[in-house]
Amino acid sequence: MNFEVQAPSNDLIERAMDVRRTATQLGQTTNEQRRFALEQIANALSKREQDILAANEEDLDRSQEEGLSNSLMSRLKLTKSKLQGAIEGVRKVAQLEDPLGLVQLNREIGSGLILERLTVPLGVLGVIFEARPDALIQIASLAIRSGNGAMLKGGREAIRSNEVIMESIQSGLDFSDINRKALTLLTTREESLSLLRLDGLVDLIIPRGSNELVRFIQDNTRIPVLGHADGVCHLYIDLEADIEQALNIAIDSKTQYPAACNAIETLLLHREIASEFLEKAIPAFKKEGVLLLGDSQSQALGIEGEASEDDWDKEYLDLVLSIRIVDNFEMALEHILLHGSRHTESIVTSNKKTAESFLRAVDSAGVYHNCSTRFADGFRYGFGAEVGISTQTLPPRGPVGLEGLVTYRYFLRGDGHIVSDFVSGKISFSHKDF
Amino acid sequence: MNFEVQAPSNDLIERAMDVRRTATQLGQTTNEQRRFALEQIANALSKREQDILAANEEDLDRSQEEGLSNSLMSRLKLTKSKLQGAIEGVRKVAQLEDPLGLVQLNREIGSGLILERLTVPLGVLGVIFEARPDALIQIASLAIRSGNGAMLKGGREAIRSNEVIMESIQSGLDFSDINRKALTLLTTREESLSLLRLDGLVDLIIPRGSNELVRFIQDNTRIPVLGHADGVCHLYIDLEADIEQALNIAIDSKTQYPAACNAIETLLLHREIASEFLEKAIPAFKKEGVLLLGDSQSQALGIEGEASEDDWDKEYLDLVLSIRIVDNFEMALEHILLHGSRHTESIVTSNKKTAESFLRAVDSAGVYHNCSTRFADGFRYGFGAEVGISTQTLPPRGPVGLEGLVTYRYFLRGDGHIVSDFVSGKISFSHKDF
Repeated sequence: MNFEVQAPSNDLIERAMDVRRTATQLGQTTNEQRRFALEQIANALSKREQDILAANEEDLDRSQEEGLSNSLMSRLKLTKSKLQGAIEGVRKVAQLEDPLGLVQLNREIGSGLILERLTVPLGVLGVIFEARPDALIQIASLAIRSGNGAMLKGGREAIRSNEVIMESIQSGLDFSDINRKALTLLTTREESLSLLRLDGLVDLIIPRGSNELVRFIQDNTRIPVLGHADGVCHLYIDLEADIEQALNIAIDSKTQYPAACNAIETLLLHREIASEFLEKAIPAFKKEGVLLLGDSQSQALGIEGEASEDDWDKEYLDLVLSIRIVDNFEMALEHILLHGSRHTESIVTSNKKTAESFLRAVDSAGVYHNCSTRFADGFRYGFGAEVGISTQTLPPRGPVGLEGLVTYRYFLRGDGHIVSDFVSGKISFSHKDF
Repeated sequence: MNFEVQAPSNDLIERAMDVRRTATQLGQTTNEQRRFALEQIANALSKREQDILAANEEDLDRSQEEGLSNSLMSRLKLTKSKLQGAIEGVRKVAQLEDPLGLVQLNREIGSGLILERLTVPLGVLGVIFEARPDALIQIASLAIRSGNGAMLKGGREAIRSNEVIMESIQSGLDFSDINRKALTLLTTREESLSLLRLDGLVDLIIPRGSNELVRFIQDNTRIPVLGHADGVCHLYIDLEADIEQALNIAIDSKTQYPAACNAIETLLLHREIASEFLEKAIPAFKKEGVLLLGDSQSQALGIEGEASEDDWDKEYLDLVLSIRIVDNFEMALEHILLHGSRHTESIVTSNKKTAESFLRAVDSAGVYHNCSTRFADGFRYGFGAEVGISTQTLPPRGPVGLEGLVTYRYFLRGDGHIVSDFVSGKISFSHKDF
């Protein structure tokens, strides 16, 4: 990607300030007000179903003419059931527990001086997504649910769909206590890029699109980015593994949905089980249409394709799997340290001690024992919604639910308390938790 | 600052990998092992007190010749009591509660498939500090306590002090179960800058120094930075304020330690109380040696200096205070929105409703009622140690204790569980919290 990120125009800064001011109001609404607003959004989207589908037809026709790739065309296409699913999603987000106002700390600092820490919204989200207009519905509802304003930029290919969807969402908000200005749609590419420069006004960037898009954004903004560029996940099969279980987990981790970031890209096999495992695995993977690429040792055991050094760092996002035979447990850990993206790694072993060593030593967001890496997902974890999966070390990490859209604020209430009285010893710190 | 950040050398990458590998071991040590290691560090530092002070003398002599500024000279100087205080600090950090292994989530996902979320170390910290060699002692002990490796870069002016301190710390570690390689001291400027490029190997950058240093670092790394460039804090005195209380709080907030980031830079005065307040405040601030700069309205009420538009965004870090008279509560909020750095703001009012409106509407890390902004500090909050104060919106925010040096990891333990069995309906998600 070689766009140039330009300084934001005064107009964009003004719009961002407007969203920020509105978000301040939104952050003070009650759980009921935000729930009600989401119901109104869902109703408004339902009412305008035909208009949305018609606008999407326009986008599809134009994109077809312009030669958009098949995969993008299919992500762009809003079928009636896809749209209804997205609207159903809005109602589900309404039902999630309120992420705001949770008391994380309640402490007396000194007599009469009380410190509280409560969850509050982040403020303003900057969302950049490609193709999928249903992502706009999902992310707008998550923003409102968590009390955040949002500036949203969809792909040019979905411009009509996004416009009609945003009109509908905003007309829904008009029936609620939440000002429609809490959400704003950016429509030009220049705006979307300048958004990356709105530090101080935008608190978090959420990219929804290709790895290339995410990496470009990470490289071009000082605003924190929620997401991940790579998902190079590993499955390590230990010498004490149950072969059948290992094979089931390997097949599920690779083939259940190969385009997902939590699918495995590399299988590490302990030398002492490799031959027995591959004897069954090679035909099984073949049946699933998986191309296997092996190191020299596993090629010697029947794998036809060759894995080069580069393969250990590749995210195929496809029915391709690289296989490496390791001499021991430590070599598996070292491979993961060098080539993993700290997303999700799993071990198959019937030895609990080995498993626990693996779980302690591997520093990925998810570390699994005897199960598929495909479980790394906000819905499967029970968060009710997924904002994204983060491979950053700092929290929020891994699959992120609504929790990723809130922060906290310290509230300190006194009655004329000053620090010099504590320094002089007139008053003492008590630090008593309630 | 116009240094050039160069790509890390192979040697630096190797050293970082070494720290990373060692940190993996360190992250698995018990609370007792880490406590014991800190005691050994404290002992080793005590034993080498004379050597450290002698090395510090060398640094002072050389820096004197080189014409180091007075303020940096005083930060560089390690008196015996300053050093003993720092060593005492190590023993205190040893006594803090373990930030690792805290269970944040414990849930059955489906029958026999158990999800846990535990706190774990971040991995490797990159620390860049200026002048103060005692900062090396403090940050090294916080790193070990929280199970993190660290690459530390001190200022050139403190090079001998830092070398002897690091030797002592590492010789202390040799008496413990923790490998001395968990900590490494970088000594050249090139290394310190390349450190900013070690994303993937270094998980968090902690700058300890001038605002200029922090801003330079934030602009030149993709690694998250814990810290703040600006601390433009406000005190708003409402029309229903107790004048004497307001004045006490204003004086404490400005003068108790003006060089701190949590000291106020701007006082916002409600129009209806301004005259009465300033009558007492002007002589009181004069007595404390504070230079007052006012807007035209407050100048009309006796303030001699003039505040220009630029003053509202300035962090004086000195005995200077800008004063602005606002027509109402909303205008105070708008001023804070436009000029604050989301650090700490306080309101003085006897009207609880007004206070709560302020606390809800102001989106700073700390929002205070009837108390001094100087309370914004990890020790005063009762964290026992302060890693830094962050003005980022995302957690960790505000004064950050050991909590800022840990993250979490999801542990999923199953018995052959695969996603396709859940998708086919063979097994159902249960999502039961224990």
